[in-house]
Amino acid sequence: MTLPLAFDILQSGVRLSLICAVIGLGCAFLLIAVILRSSPGNERMRQISGAVQEGAKAYLNRQVMTISVIAVVIFLLLFFFKDHPTAFGFLLGAFCSLAAGYIGMRIAVLANARVTQAATQARTRALRVAFNGGAVTGLLVVGLALLAVGIFYHFARNMVGPDMAVRSLIGLALGASLISVFARLGGGIYTKAADVGADLVGKIEAGLEEDDPRNPATIADNVGDNVGDCAGMAADVFETYAVSLIGTILVGVLTVANAPAAIVYPFVLGGISVLGAICGILFVNFGGGKPASVLMGAVGMSALVSAILFWPATHQLFPNGVEIAGKLRSPTDLYYASLIGLIMTGVVVVITNYYTSMRYRPVQKIARASETGHATNIIAGLAVGQHATALPVGFIGIAILLSYNFAGLYGIAVAVMAMLSMAGIIISLDAFGPITDNAGGIAVMSNLGKEVRAATDELDAVGNTMKAVTKGYAIASAGLAALVLFGSYVEELKAHITSNGQPFNFQFSLTEPKVIIGLFIGGLLPFIFTAFSMDAVGKAAGAVVREVRRQLQAHPGILQGTETPEYGKCVDIVTKAALREMIVPALLPLAFVILVAVIPQLGPVVLGGVLVGTIVTGLFVAIAMTSSGGAWDNAKKFIEEGNYGGKGSPAHAAAVTGDTVGDPYKDTAGPAINPMIKVVNIVAILIIPIFF
Amino acid sequence: MTLPLAFDILQSGVRLSLICAVIGLGCAFLLIAVILRSSPGNERMRQISGAVQEGAKAYLNRQVMTISVIAVVIFLLLFFFKDHPTAFGFLLGAFCSLAAGYIGMRIAVLANARVTQAATQARTRALRVAFNGGAVTGLLVVGLALLAVGIFYHFARNMVGPDMAVRSLIGLALGASLISVFARLGGGIYTKAADVGADLVGKIEAGLEEDDPRNPATIADNVGDNVGDCAGMAADVFETYAVSLIGTILVGVLTVANAPAAIVYPFVLGGISVLGAICGILFVNFGGGKPASVLMGAVGMSALVSAILFWPATHQLFPNGVEIAGKLRSPTDLYYASLIGLIMTGVVVVITNYYTSMRYRPVQKIARASETGHATNIIAGLAVGQHATALPVGFIGIAILLSYNFAGLYGIAVAVMAMLSMAGIIISLDAFGPITDNAGGIAVMSNLGKEVRAATDELDAVGNTMKAVTKGYAIASAGLAALVLFGSYVEELKAHITSNGQPFNFQFSLTEPKVIIGLFIGGLLPFIFTAFSMDAVGKAAGAVVREVRRQLQAHPGILQGTETPEYGKCVDIVTKAALREMIVPALLPLAFVILVAVIPQLGPVVLGGVLVGTIVTGLFVAIAMTSSGGAWDNAKKFIEEGNYGGKGSPAHAAAVTGDTVGDPYKDTAGPAINPMIKVVNIVAILIIPIFF
Repeated sequence: MTLPLAFDILQSGVRLSLICAVIGLGCAFLLIAVILRSSPGNERMRQISGAVQEGAKAYLNRQVMTISVIAVVIFLLLFFFKDHPTAFGFLLGAFCSLAAGYIGMRIAVLANARVTQAATQARTRALRVAFNGGAVTGLLVVGLALLAVGIFYHFARNMVGPDMAVRSLIGLALGASLISVFARLGGGIYTKAADVGADLVGKIEAGLEEDDPRNPATIADNVGDNVGDCAGMAADVFETYAVSLIGTILVGVLTVANAPAAIVYPFVLGGISVLGAICGILFVNFGGGKPASVLMGAVGMSALVSAILFWPATHQLFPNGVEIAGKLRSPTDLYYASLIGLIMTGVVVVITNYYTSMRYRPVQKIARASETGHATNIIAGLAVGQHATALPVGFIGIAILLSYNFAGLYGIAVAVMAMLSMAGIIISLDAFGPITDNAGGIAVMSNLGKEVRAATDELDAVGNTMKAVTKGYAIASAGLAALVLFGSYVEELKAHITSNGQPFNFQFSLTEPKVIIGLFIGGLLPFIFTAFSMDAVGKAAGAVVREVRRQLQAHPGILQGTETPEYGKCVDIVTKAALREMIVPALLPLAFVILVAVIPQLGPVVLGGVLVGTIVTGLFVAIAMTSSGGAWDNAKKFIEEGNYGGKGSPAHAAAVTGDTVGDPYKDTAGPAINPMIKVVNIVAILIIPIFF
Repeated sequence: MTLPLAFDILQSGVRLSLICAVIGLGCAFLLIAVILRSSPGNERMRQISGAVQEGAKAYLNRQVMTISVIAVVIFLLLFFFKDHPTAFGFLLGAFCSLAAGYIGMRIAVLANARVTQAATQARTRALRVAFNGGAVTGLLVVGLALLAVGIFYHFARNMVGPDMAVRSLIGLALGASLISVFARLGGGIYTKAADVGADLVGKIEAGLEEDDPRNPATIADNVGDNVGDCAGMAADVFETYAVSLIGTILVGVLTVANAPAAIVYPFVLGGISVLGAICGILFVNFGGGKPASVLMGAVGMSALVSAILFWPATHQLFPNGVEIAGKLRSPTDLYYASLIGLIMTGVVVVITNYYTSMRYRPVQKIARASETGHATNIIAGLAVGQHATALPVGFIGIAILLSYNFAGLYGIAVAVMAMLSMAGIIISLDAFGPITDNAGGIAVMSNLGKEVRAATDELDAVGNTMKAVTKGYAIASAGLAALVLFGSYVEELKAHITSNGQPFNFQFSLTEPKVIIGLFIGGLLPFIFTAFSMDAVGKAAGAVVREVRRQLQAHPGILQGTETPEYGKCVDIVTKAALREMIVPALLPLAFVILVAVIPQLGPVVLGGVLVGTIVTGLFVAIAMTSSGGAWDNAKKFIEEGNYGGKGSPAHAAAVTGDTVGDPYKDTAGPAINPMIKVVNIVAILIIPIFF
């Protein structure tokens, strides 16, 4: 790790990838300029967009304050009880995670009215504006993650030496993950409390359409799209990206003989894929075709560019192969491991699309079940979610088996990093969803023409599918990244115990009851974490319902259109409720890990079981929840297209119930599992020297 | 194992426990005589009871035929590819499992009208008739299990020697478990398809009350209570009991130095608890008080008697302690392990009661959430189910830790057997549920007076809670029993590999990717198993809905009360649909295990992971599903008592949706996981010598 020759590779490889990151950031700013050049529409549109922007900013500012308090406490704990580099790493990770969310949201609210305006001219234009809005977030998140990890590592290395520098990266990972749990939960609770609240009173009781300006919660609902789907998702993927990068570095240091190249490799994969993402973005901006196929084409293009460039890069870094866990692996072995990550991205996207798109059987089955009522709609949706776990988990198993065969634990890490390297283009698709959703809202609220609404509706439907699809990606990659972290936990524990001169005789065997108990405790976490999250949405939504009812009763003019509702009141109420309700579930994983570590009858072996248990059930629960949610949503849309009686039919009422149940499933509880399973693993690694 | 002195203990201990079993059977026949002596009510009541009886018999006969075909195929496979004792063991296990279900159902349909009739006289009388009906099943199931395992082991031992005899018990376990999966699924699909079908058209579309004789599906609905809740439950608990007994014997042989006493011990625990159950039954028949407290008192009484008698029995069998896994354990250690099992029974009952009884916060929270509509009712119910997993799993973890500390893997097995030894009294409570449910149905259909209905309604509510509570017990004990089987799998594998002269170097460590992949594959099984089960209910219910609609349209006189519906048609349709739909999910666990064993890249280590993965997620999914279901059911009842608007209010409509979603959750998919996780483990043990 300290060979002078190796040092050169380290320097130049990381430097090149950071240059790619800077290029990515440059493109992001270019795209911002392009977006700003397009017209934000008429007075009314600007007004609505402004209200949404203001609400989102107000929420995020308060969220930042709330989270900052917690972050400072943890920073101080790390600073005094752990070490300074880790503490500063934590601070940086937390800051960047917040920044990623903030930027994602800002861009989205800049883009929304511009998409609506573009839709008045041409659909392709609207598609491009919306996609470019997402692409800014994608490029910024990826660039930020590469730069943060790379530069922090560089400085830490010079100041405290390479070993300590690698260890302190875990602090950065914790900062990113923990903040991301809060962002996901806070944003998720906000968006769904506003959505459910708006729907329950507005749609069901008062019979208003979606986004009707007479609904007092409608601005809050649109704010929610931004703070949940944009800011939450951006923080989440930033975190998974940073954690995968750090996890791969850690596994490289712990298990690969030629550590410097193993450290550089994940940076290089990430850097190359920034170029791939830029190619994908160009493809959308200069290609043509149906929205869904253009977007999927962009993903394919990115993957192709990455797959081609990974080959020479891998051979350059590992010209003579490398010894991993006592066995020599060829550069081709490592290349194959990276390919598995790229292929997994495609596989997960295709599978999630099958289970959540209205063009296939699962969603249509739910739509048909809606004919016999609310209950059968729910049963069908729950069943679809559970069915949807089979293929992704099966492919994850195959990916683990293959990449491990190619290059041991490091091979798995490389596959994960390659999968995550696609985040730039994948976030572009994901952020596309809430932007088009908002654009549609603005079109309705501004009373724009039918053709404009049709255009935004079409984009919104595509956006819905993209949102569902990228959730599958986020979860699968989170599960794999967490597995890499678990591997790091065991290696760290071994290093820690043997560094104290003791023999390492911990057994993580399934025949050891402590491991089984750990699996149970860990397996429990996703179940109660999501239960608390759903409760939180319920409570926050209840507050919205009461406020909307109050306004409609106190001001009958609102429903007649003669009075303007107090949108700000609703925004304010959801903001407070979301921030209050996110605390308990967000601190749950921390509490679990520390308790298991502290109780002497449990200890490091049980904790190992906890980590794996959380990953196993977490993966299933998250996939089931997000798939059910996506499928319910599109089943409703399928009925609204005129099937099974169309809008207003009993089947539609049942489908609305399913959609509402699906809201906290797919946008709060399910996706919040991603950062949660990583927090559990990172905290476990971090506390090894404190408690064991 | 072949010491002559030890042989004596073996003989006399087993003999004594079999005498207890025979005493239990004697009491069961006495109770049948008592039940038969009481009046079956007036003509109309006898008629309805007869129709239910006929439908149930017709279904069970067809189910027996369907399952027999599958059983014969497996018997032949075992006979030709495995060995004869195992094959015959399978046949005996399958036969007894079917018999247990059959008897349970027969007694229940004998008792139902008699409970209604008793309710016209005195509530205490009705309570006793219903409880005695359940007690017959309880005693028969336990006695049958003890006798079947004891006598088969005795004969097999004399014919093929002790080693082979123990191995062939696995065949018996497979027979019991596999048939029980079919019975649980078939019965569960039947009961819920009929229930959901009857409710969807009858209650929601035609506005009929529960059990209204004008609903063509009402007899099918009442038949369902018997074939699902009685026959299915009886087969299920028979299976768990037999498997726990066999698992404890197996672990005793594989890990305990003084094997004969270790083999006798589980029989003795079982035998003693038959006496405990009889004391509990006496308590109900001669004690007084509120229904719920009398029944809970009976459980307490049984546990107390068992706890007292376990002490001398344990010291008698292990006067000088025993060496387990190389460490000497005192008789008191073993006694404590058995106590843990008894305590776990109480703990699980109390916890499940908290989450599913309308007297506590969780159910009331769901009821309150119903006010804001269908969707919030569903979200609240799903969240309650997930919350409900925490405490049982926590206590299971503590029980594993303690009993393992007392006596290694054998200690866990002893705790499980002690827990299962309570099955006699627990089934009495459980079968009480469908009997009172039917009694209420008969009261409504026979137009009996208000006071009678009030009496049967009160018993029905108690029965609902008992049903929910015993489900928690069934699942917790099934999970623990499956863990013992997993321990046996590893020991068997070790014995098999070393007997071939090869070193045993399989690692079941979490650091081994194959184990992780196994955990994923195994973890998947409960998710898709329950998904298929729910689909099956949906399809079968759809058939009922179409038939009920057809009858109501073709014969308008039915709703006016001038025409009698064709009840038999509905019964027939559900019968066929249930038997058709149960096949795929029931064969799923078999297919999983065999595929993993056959694929060379997977093999024994992955299979080990599969076994544990299925147990871990299975436990969570089963507890969540049954708790949600029970809570939804009672939330509806809570509203029907006049809260949140009472019957007919929007909150009630929402609560009915929750109850309907809960039906397949709590009565089909959830409970079918119990035998499923054991089938997986047993098949794995069985195929070791074939594939590895």
